[in-house]
Amino acid sequence: MDNGHVTREVLPSSAELEGEVDNAPAGEAILNPSDTFVHRHIGPSASDVRAMLDLLKVGSLDELIEQTVPAAIRLPRPLNLGEPRGEFETLAELRAIAEKNRVMRSCIGMGYYDTITPAVIQRNILENPGWYTQYTPYQAEISQGRLEALLNFQTMIADLTGLPLANASLLDEGTAAAEAMAMCRSIADAKKNAFFVSADCHPQTIAVVKTRAKALGIHCIVGKKSELENQIDQLFCGVLLQYPNTQGQIVDYSETIAQAHQAGCAVVLATDLLALALIKSPGELGADIAIGSAQRFGVPMGFGGPHAGFMATKSEHARKMPGRIVGVSKDAQGNPALRLAIQTREQHIRREKATSNICTAQVLLAIMAGMYGVYHGPRGIKRIAQRVHALTSALAAGLERLGHQVDSGRFFDTIRIRPNGLEAEMVLNAAQNSGYNLRDFGDGSLGISLDETTTRQDVQALLECFSGGATFRLNVDELASVRQSIEDRTTPYLTHPVFNRYHSETEMLRYIRRLESRDLSLTTSMIPLGSCTMKLNATSEMFPVTWPEFGRMHPYAPADQTLGYTDLFQQLEKWLAEITGFSAVSLQPNAGSQGEYAGLLAIRAYHESRGEGNRNICLIPTSAHGTNPASAVVAGLKVVAVACDANGSIEVEDLKKKAGEHAANLACLMITYPSTHGVFEESVREICAILHQHGGQVYMDGANMNAQVGLTSPGFIGADVCHLNLHKTFCIPHGGGGPGMGPIAVAPHLKDFLPYQAQGMQSLGLVEERGVGMVSSAPYGSASILTISWMYIRMMGGPGLKRASEIAILNANYMSQRLEPHYPILFKGKNGRVAHEFVMDARQFEKGAGVKVEDIAKRLMDYGYHAPTMSWPVPGTLMVEPTESESKAELERLCDALIAIRAEIREVEEGRLDRDDNPLKNAPHPAGAVSADDWKHSYPRQKAAYPANWLREHKFWPPVGRIDNPYGDRNLICTCPPMSGYCE
Amino acid sequence: MDNGHVTREVLPSSAELEGEVDNAPAGEAILNPSDTFVHRHIGPSASDVRAMLDLLKVGSLDELIEQTVPAAIRLPRPLNLGEPRGEFETLAELRAIAEKNRVMRSCIGMGYYDTITPAVIQRNILENPGWYTQYTPYQAEISQGRLEALLNFQTMIADLTGLPLANASLLDEGTAAAEAMAMCRSIADAKKNAFFVSADCHPQTIAVVKTRAKALGIHCIVGKKSELENQIDQLFCGVLLQYPNTQGQIVDYSETIAQAHQAGCAVVLATDLLALALIKSPGELGADIAIGSAQRFGVPMGFGGPHAGFMATKSEHARKMPGRIVGVSKDAQGNPALRLAIQTREQHIRREKATSNICTAQVLLAIMAGMYGVYHGPRGIKRIAQRVHALTSALAAGLERLGHQVDSGRFFDTIRIRPNGLEAEMVLNAAQNSGYNLRDFGDGSLGISLDETTTRQDVQALLECFSGGATFRLNVDELASVRQSIEDRTTPYLTHPVFNRYHSETEMLRYIRRLESRDLSLTTSMIPLGSCTMKLNATSEMFPVTWPEFGRMHPYAPADQTLGYTDLFQQLEKWLAEITGFSAVSLQPNAGSQGEYAGLLAIRAYHESRGEGNRNICLIPTSAHGTNPASAVVAGLKVVAVACDANGSIEVEDLKKKAGEHAANLACLMITYPSTHGVFEESVREICAILHQHGGQVYMDGANMNAQVGLTSPGFIGADVCHLNLHKTFCIPHGGGGPGMGPIAVAPHLKDFLPYQAQGMQSLGLVEERGVGMVSSAPYGSASILTISWMYIRMMGGPGLKRASEIAILNANYMSQRLEPHYPILFKGKNGRVAHEFVMDARQFEKGAGVKVEDIAKRLMDYGYHAPTMSWPVPGTLMVEPTESESKAELERLCDALIAIRAEIREVEEGRLDRDDNPLKNAPHPAGAVSADDWKHSYPRQKAAYPANWLREHKFWPPVGRIDNPYGDRNLICTCPPMSGYCE
Repeated sequence: MDNGHVTREVLPSSAELEGEVDNAPAGEAILNPSDTFVHRHIGPSASDVRAMLDLLKVGSLDELIEQTVPAAIRLPRPLNLGEPRGEFETLAELRAIAEKNRVMRSCIGMGYYDTITPAVIQRNILENPGWYTQYTPYQAEISQGRLEALLNFQTMIADLTGLPLANASLLDEGTAAAEAMAMCRSIADAKKNAFFVSADCHPQTIAVVKTRAKALGIHCIVGKKSELENQIDQLFCGVLLQYPNTQGQIVDYSETIAQAHQAGCAVVLATDLLALALIKSPGELGADIAIGSAQRFGVPMGFGGPHAGFMATKSEHARKMPGRIVGVSKDAQGNPALRLAIQTREQHIRREKATSNICTAQVLLAIMAGMYGVYHGPRGIKRIAQRVHALTSALAAGLERLGHQVDSGRFFDTIRIRPNGLEAEMVLNAAQNSGYNLRDFGDGSLGISLDETTTRQDVQALLECFSGGATFRLNVDELASVRQSIEDRTTPYLTHPVFNRYHSETEMLRYIRRLESRDLSLTTSMIPLGSCTMKLNATSEMFPVTWPEFGRMHPYAPADQTLGYTDLFQQLEKWLAEITGFSAVSLQPNAGSQGEYAGLLAIRAYHESRGEGNRNICLIPTSAHGTNPASAVVAGLKVVAVACDANGSIEVEDLKKKAGEHAANLACLMITYPSTHGVFEESVREICAILHQHGGQVYMDGANMNAQVGLTSPGFIGADVCHLNLHKTFCIPHGGGGPGMGPIAVAPHLKDFLPYQAQGMQSLGLVEERGVGMVSSAPYGSASILTISWMYIRMMGGPGLKRASEIAILNANYMSQRLEPHYPILFKGKNGRVAHEFVMDARQFEKGAGVKVEDIAKRLMDYGYHAPTMSWPVPGTLMVEPTESESKAELERLCDALIAIRAEIREVEEGRLDRDDNPLKNAPHPAGAVSADDWKHSYPRQKAAYPANWLREHKFWPPVGRIDNPYGDRNLICTCPPMSGYCE
Repeated sequence: MDNGHVTREVLPSSAELEGEVDNAPAGEAILNPSDTFVHRHIGPSASDVRAMLDLLKVGSLDELIEQTVPAAIRLPRPLNLGEPRGEFETLAELRAIAEKNRVMRSCIGMGYYDTITPAVIQRNILENPGWYTQYTPYQAEISQGRLEALLNFQTMIADLTGLPLANASLLDEGTAAAEAMAMCRSIADAKKNAFFVSADCHPQTIAVVKTRAKALGIHCIVGKKSELENQIDQLFCGVLLQYPNTQGQIVDYSETIAQAHQAGCAVVLATDLLALALIKSPGELGADIAIGSAQRFGVPMGFGGPHAGFMATKSEHARKMPGRIVGVSKDAQGNPALRLAIQTREQHIRREKATSNICTAQVLLAIMAGMYGVYHGPRGIKRIAQRVHALTSALAAGLERLGHQVDSGRFFDTIRIRPNGLEAEMVLNAAQNSGYNLRDFGDGSLGISLDETTTRQDVQALLECFSGGATFRLNVDELASVRQSIEDRTTPYLTHPVFNRYHSETEMLRYIRRLESRDLSLTTSMIPLGSCTMKLNATSEMFPVTWPEFGRMHPYAPADQTLGYTDLFQQLEKWLAEITGFSAVSLQPNAGSQGEYAGLLAIRAYHESRGEGNRNICLIPTSAHGTNPASAVVAGLKVVAVACDANGSIEVEDLKKKAGEHAANLACLMITYPSTHGVFEESVREICAILHQHGGQVYMDGANMNAQVGLTSPGFIGADVCHLNLHKTFCIPHGGGGPGMGPIAVAPHLKDFLPYQAQGMQSLGLVEERGVGMVSSAPYGSASILTISWMYIRMMGGPGLKRASEIAILNANYMSQRLEPHYPILFKGKNGRVAHEFVMDARQFEKGAGVKVEDIAKRLMDYGYHAPTMSWPVPGTLMVEPTESESKAELERLCDALIAIRAEIREVEEGRLDRDDNPLKNAPHPAGAVSADDWKHSYPRQKAAYPANWLREHKFWPPVGRIDNPYGDRNLICTCPPMSGYCE
């Protein structure tokens, strides 16, 4: 824990944790940093806590926790994670770690390229809490800004790939390829159970696809183009080809594609967005699906992520496409409005019928990439591509003049070189000494990829590395004068006005800010989403994300250059192991769903290693989140449901029965703790024991870790593996629907079955499957945002983390107590306490007032709030999770809003408001509606717009009225509509 | 120009400058950076420019410039400033310069202390264009956010100083002291013309006061307390004392103050805000005025600035206090609303009767300091102060145990040490080797100041520097256990709820964002303020401001540690000399008004040096900005007005007459070019010649440099000195009313009369007056923001800067042409062209419609716009300056708004709208008003709120209605009102 830095000497009191000390502490404590982070992260002050405990009629926080968390599972010792620290000193500590990373100019390629993040995008999106603290845009009326930004992204992807339908991003290129494979199988008839992958794809893409294929039982063949052409037959549901390929060649696949189609096999083309500015698009080539990464459109490499993977396809596959899709619809006033389209495809309602477990996107990064397209426009993008190609041409020509063999045929930005008369090793070293990383194919050949940051001087310096020390005279401009003519693209792209208007910084700034103002984020008010833990994403946690030492690192850079990252990972793994009570951690899965998938793969591999590969039954309680069964399916398991009682808790008898019935093939149980109903189940230890008795493993979903940290742990409870949503409990912001990180932690016996972290892997021939293979494209997933969780844990220390869990529980109990007279609180523990979240019933209003839970959710917008989780885990209810970061004042305000809405419902019930024309049914009320000349409603305007006093001081205006979802699905439009559409 | 970096090889075409190239440029140009900054900075695209030229019926931009700028003064050669560059490469270049600064831990003190900028404040204020791009809050209805933040600052200063009335900040501590001196003279009767300054004030404060005293003809005596006590008599209008003084002593001045008051002499106490958390306040001690710096409240040292100086005084001096004061009033709906109070005090309407030329504040920095107070609250501030004092106590005790003499008596955070048995030099070196800068008093004694960033380990390391290499055993905690008891403050502070509510980051974030949403800034729409040049403040220009290499530098750090700054200054001085056509530049003046003052002092000193010290007449055209005469008065000159013609241009005959009349005593002429009326006067060369014929100098006001750069220059025109508003032409953001920078450039003969840049000056005894002495507290003024102008000039290069001037002129001519059918355009050059701004007449509406220019200004808010400059230079008019950064689309939108307002006026004229109850008279219309249940106006709500289509897409809602100014001045409240006030 020490890291050689000076640690805090004196334990803080709880008053200190809350920053409420009236006088100088006595003795030595006076010299301690006076402003540690804990009381900045936690909302309620010490006196607030006392007042809240009073309402709950408990004497202390400890007493409340005793009533809430079963004694049997409470940790016997404090977390060994050091003491709370200040932001200033912790940033200095991380700065020292960052400086151990050596930032070189990357020419490695492999799908990761240095890029220039336009400053206006960096400051106003990536570094702006107004853009990074929003939730997934389920409440579309107050999410119009990011929905428009995502629509831009989709339009850009559709344009560049030449395929009409793009989703709002996937986790990364490898995942996109794996999803495309599953999609091919879902398109093809059931007998087709083989998938061909070109050996010229990026090695990590191949690795991720192979892992997924194995799990799904798909026969995956990796081979050369010629091998494919020789064996295309009815077995293949699809083929995955890449152009430009990993060596840089723009292979002409038209023949292959025609053959594949003739054999009834879908074609997936992995490709490069920048190259597509010049060369024929996948759509023009006849591909069914195009995938790739949007990283180089302004998103730093970040040692692997986060970035937006993309996927585009033909219209007819709309309902087969995984991931989120933004579409155009209209609102109650008839104005155009955006929302997530055709959500019925999504896993969260398909459960064990899922073909994908993707339940998020890389929203923030997709937005950045889309904005990069908006800022540069078609001309700018084309010019960047032409310049990169010209520089690469110059480099290739120069290398040839120096006598080296350049292998890449038609190329865009990447060439493969066989040095003549020089050892590859020597060249690599010379390059490193000059500050460049080349790609080492491991067979004596080298790869060089250029990008928009490359200059003449870089080309000159690279040529020098290949000169063997001899002096030579080559003029880069002259070398560039003869270029391969690769530009065969004839179709236009980025023709929509949005890509042609905002090219000055002033215009761009205003466009970004205009969209921001249409979204409700944590900068406005609390977002009380049960199970989603929308807590503070502190600025000090966010600062390091944009440090170049973390951002400008290629995920496959030589290990001796990434020692800072290595330190960071080791510390974070150790801390997460301590927090979960497990012994090993993999930081690779870059979303919670990925974590589930990886964890289940570990369980499967463990069984296999013991000769019990037959174990394929996954028990899942009916109360589980839909992602659980979807992940089980994707991991190749069969789902068996376990009944729950009225409280949402597992029925132990049913569990015993199912475990017994399936004992021979029992793989595992997936369980969420505290339960998805917000209750600390007393029987959790027994449940774990039952599984183990029958040879099964226990997978714990980390969704609710925010109530466990420092109080109990998955390991202590008796589980075998868990994932952690770093974007929930550990402060990575939700980014409007991504990025996330879903590392898994495992007990010692599962340690050997973690995903393979292929650090430094640049060779085509060396992709080996170890552990369970790779689950995402980069060894440490979205590495750069791990800095956020590192900062959080380091600043909070053991006492701060425990306090956070306690206050999260206090806040939830306080709110539920205040709300109970107005809404039934559905599920409680044996002492009448909820955990860190609670479920409010709203079903009772339908009969008397015709009010549905959705009406309450939309009405909350008029009060300036985002609704709690709606109709999950129980239809017709609202699940509230206040988190520890919300102050008492903010809790009161939300309670006041909910109570006021209850009073409005009563007005309907009692006939004082019309059953159809009332503020709930017509919510939300945009400014345009309440200030219209005509006001046809039977209640006054002020009641519509200003139902609470605080709105006079600050009102977030919903930019549109209630959105018509079915209309949009009937008239599917998933790219930017013509401007006339906005003027209707 | 080269700096050893690779320069761009190929000249950009103008299409390239505007970023509109359809195909890859031929030949070598393909390898140039594809995205230089110029077309990001400039709003109109190449095709926009063509369309705009068409409307103006000119064939090319060159032709327009020929029609606009007199041929005689057009530069014969392009600026020698290099080629346009990209943001990415220029940031890399500045990064390399930054790294030449060696960041040490500063213990120098002297009023500058390391500080922790709370991350939430850094990211959401200092790095947020929503806070740094606003204009001065003259249009109070759309400035409520920063007005509230400034009211917090005033309240904090008033609380801590114990004096009821604080202003909204001054330029720095030295300036505040000089202003206090002038205020003392203005309070005292006219005979009292001496001012006593304690020799224990910070040396730079003494220097700045002496410069000002000399200019104003005040007899300034610097001496010890005892000297003062011996000579207090009727001669002194005031005394300036400091506690804790520059050596750290908390001297008891109660006796002295009593004596001073008895002698009828006002007392100014310079003090330290953090110390005041523990010790008796100036108010309690009986001071009349308190001054100091708010830097250590979260604002980085920045090698001298920008920071907020503060001043507080007794209520009875309200109308004598310089600077801006925010006060509470009410709006048309009766709600509380803020605005600048008692503006009649301000120089801009007092002209030659001015006692101060201050016409701005350090708004952004005052807001940061105020927010630091809000975030820490009274407990947090006190705790920080106690800790710093405890650390200092430990250090002092340790040094005494090591045998050294500690001089400081009662101290807070600073001690003066006379090392025993060690040379001061040795200790200084040892400290530098350990990474610490101590203060060298130059007499063998050393100073050490601690601050909130100091830790136990720092104290330990400092003690080691004094150990002469011997091992010793001292425990810092034990040393701290015995502390001086200095806490004699008994009065509370920061008791208002605003300082006690927002202590968690989430709450603070929302408070900051809530205030931001109440302000219109450049992030919303153009701010077309004539003479104020609200152009783009590009993110790339802003990034370096928060690099620690620039931020964490003490202004008097040893010169060998500040080589990066030295490079930056030298380059910038060279560039500004090239741009102005002069030969030397001083970067010291930290506001335009300071620049005027410094420039006039240079002229006076030049005359003196030639034995013509009698020359004290300053000719100023009647069209000049009020700051000109005010600066002349402050510089000790007598103002003689020169008549202007109907066009606002100087009447050459009158000038000849006045120059002749005053030839014997003629000091100079102050002139703005293009004129304040937005015209390039043809006679400007002749005017300069007339002055020179009569032995006078020509001072050129730099306010309108944005129309000159690259086309002409003050030097080329024939002036002798000019100042530059870097916060106008050179992209430093206005920050809502500061910071600014006003460097001056001079012809060779004035070079020796620039302000003294006392780099490295730490000694009390060595304050020498050289040149004209010091005009601000730091050698290079607000050094850290010079990075902004450096970036701008470097990225634009010569061609880009020239293009910016041309487009600024084009934009103004385009708008004026579009508007002319609707509003008379008052002043034009001989070819019918305006310069970069133009004046629209609005006087003609009063008679027919009862509409005043103010009504138009307020009505523009309903259209989402900030008004142009109102009633200046001509009452009843609007002066529009679009700048080069605004796109054609935005110009059209503003034109449309103004034309629509003209149509509304016509409706009144024609009786279709009521003369008293119309949208102009009632503007602005807040959301609460247009959605009120009751709508009593004779025009519909939609006309009030949505008079233009674009407002449907994005509407900035004015947070309050029209503000009643006289009400606020009659009921002066300049600190946060009790909360009940808000609930009325």
